Amino acid sequence: MSFGIDDLPVRDELRGKSPYGAPQLDVPVRLNTNENPYPLPEPLVERIAERVREAARNLNRYPDRDAVELRTRLAEYLTKTGGHRVGVENVWAANGSNEIIQQLLQTFGGPGRTAIGFEPSYSMHALIARGTGTGWISGPRGEDFTIDVGAAEQAIAEHRPDVVFVTTPNNPTGNAVPAQTVLALYEAAQAARPSMVVVDEAYIEFSHGDSLLPLLEGRPNLVVSRTMSKAFGAAGLRLGYLAAHPAVVDAVQLVRLPYHLSAVTQATALAALEHTDTLLKYVEQLKSERDRLVAELTAIGYDVTTSDANFVQFGRFEDAHATWRKILDRGVLVRDNGVPGWLRVTAGTPDENDAFLDAVRELKKEQSA
Amino acid sequence: MSFGIDDLPVRDELRGKSPYGAPQLDVPVRLNTNENPYPLPEPLVERIAERVREAARNLNRYPDRDAVELRTRLAEYLTKTGGHRVGVENVWAANGSNEIIQQLLQTFGGPGRTAIGFEPSYSMHALIARGTGTGWISGPRGEDFTIDVGAAEQAIAEHRPDVVFVTTPNNPTGNAVPAQTVLALYEAAQAARPSMVVVDEAYIEFSHGDSLLPLLEGRPNLVVSRTMSKAFGAAGLRLGYLAAHPAVVDAVQLVRLPYHLSAVTQATALAALEHTDTLLKYVEQLKSERDRLVAELTAIGYDVTTSDANFVQFGRFEDAHATWRKILDRGVLVRDNGVPGWLRVTAGTPDENDAFLDAVRELKKEQSA
Repeated sequence: MSFGIDDLPVRDELRGKSPYGAPQLDVPVRLNTNENPYPLPEPLVERIAERVREAARNLNRYPDRDAVELRTRLAEYLTKTGGHRVGVENVWAANGSNEIIQQLLQTFGGPGRTAIGFEPSYSMHALIARGTGTGWISGPRGEDFTIDVGAAEQAIAEHRPDVVFVTTPNNPTGNAVPAQTVLALYEAAQAARPSMVVVDEAYIEFSHGDSLLPLLEGRPNLVVSRTMSKAFGAAGLRLGYLAAHPAVVDAVQLVRLPYHLSAVTQATALAALEHTDTLLKYVEQLKSERDRLVAELTAIGYDVTTSDANFVQFGRFEDAHATWRKILDRGVLVRDNGVPGWLRVTAGTPDENDAFLDAVRELKKEQSA
Repeated sequence: MSFGIDDLPVRDELRGKSPYGAPQLDVPVRLNTNENPYPLPEPLVERIAERVREAARNLNRYPDRDAVELRTRLAEYLTKTGGHRVGVENVWAANGSNEIIQQLLQTFGGPGRTAIGFEPSYSMHALIARGTGTGWISGPRGEDFTIDVGAAEQAIAEHRPDVVFVTTPNNPTGNAVPAQTVLALYEAAQAARPSMVVVDEAYIEFSHGDSLLPLLEGRPNLVVSRTMSKAFGAAGLRLGYLAAHPAVVDAVQLVRLPYHLSAVTQATALAALEHTDTLLKYVEQLKSERDRLVAELTAIGYDVTTSDANFVQFGRFEDAHATWRKILDRGVLVRDNGVPGWLRVTAGTPDENDAFLDAVRELKKEQSA
């Protein structure tokens, strides 16, 4: 036996674990990681090169530790699109919303504290909890993947978590969480103990409904997290951000690594924000493709979960993983998130979606034959 | 009173704390954060713009999660300059060496575990320990800022830490740690319990001596951490990396945030690595400027700690902070790291160093007058 992880003095809870991550396979049609299928428009690519060139001339210096220009532009974007006035003092940015969540758990979770999420949901919440020593509580979700308010309130009252995660639209199921539900959970959480409620809006731009940003008003223990990976078509950029009371922005700076956000990341994000209007047009295209996927999957005879995201959960399968493999054999990579009976497909370009629909149509025929 | 950090349910150990970071002041001569004073050469700036332009065309996709090309090039650089063959399987990269250290502490430290450093040293080691719930032990350093092997071995035997930090050249004192000392501490640490020894070589390229990379041979619990912030003149890039046994590289992947390293960061770092030879010529210039600072400060009548870094610790002052302020009043920003009696100055360009030397020469005259 060669020397491996378990021969090192790693923490006990890491023993026998594998790194998180979808398989990165070389397949013609990749609809597995909820990426935006549209490459950035060429004028934006040029603008990124230009802004990074400027930044590179000063690369021997540390970046703006507080990312003030970037946070100002993000605040403007949220104010314009989120139905709520947000200033630079309300916004914080990091390397992907994963780092935002990690900073929040380092500040408000951590050893001796707990966080709850309503599962199935974004699995990184639980994994980052583990990585930060925060106890994880798997909260309930209904048969139809909505959050049952009574059951959720009960779980909060019972476990008294320090951090409550609500993902809306939810990943991997796709459905949005109503504002009333979030309000009820916020009240339940505060009644149990002073605690933070983190609303993960990674996919909100694809929703039929509105952002929950207006709920921030008068609720200093509420945080809304966002990302440029999806709507901005910039998964490769790793830019996540949050909006919250200014005290929350101050608090995460106690745990953030100094100069965590590189000058090239800041320059690239600023360039992308200059092209917001163009990028949001792609979002409209993807929303209508998402709706088409829902309609066609239903027509073919699959069960489909209501989707407010850029992906669709479909089923049901006796053996979801076997079906995942059969779709892959037809050149289309979708995602098996481990939800028994269901798979998830990202809305791609019309051609990619056609390829996917052809594959699952064939599969359905084979099964009925 | 307005609503502030302490009104939020932050962790107890964060209450009353302030964020880490040197004052970012607008001063003609900034010699306070050990940045490389030489902007990247224009051909490299162009190459960065070119590689980032390419990367931006694929920015809608997640970056290479394992950063294989970048790690391969970093391994080649280490092999060429470090006196020890290192392969891609030995190297891991992250957003600054701070993130490397955070990942190491999440893997090998954390709640219920402890880390030791020999202080004064790089203060982020202790701060990242706090951020990851790792207990911190302040180990001893001698009057002359060297590590006394006997005293250090005793501290290790007494506290049985899970992680041992050795910074060489040390920051903020500047002196290098001999290989024999590191070997003795490694043995002492293994005798106390299976534990990791992290050699922080952020400034090694400026050293009169060699890298300790060859010590990795046969020592799977040893890690060498590095950065592109200093020798590569790329503090704004935030690119740190480590070399270690492949099992260590596997282990940190259990806690790393997936896709932590953006496509633009990877592209920029790859461009910089293409220009290694040019950048290392600046290092030679800085080394001779560093030696000049040591010689002139000594000639002026200051005490100076031996320096193998791109900065020099000088003293002694009854009130180091008051002296820091007086130097600042003369337009030169140096660093007060809180080491009683001492200040730290980064080696800048010849002109910047002249401005600094003029300032402290004047100060000395005033004091003797």
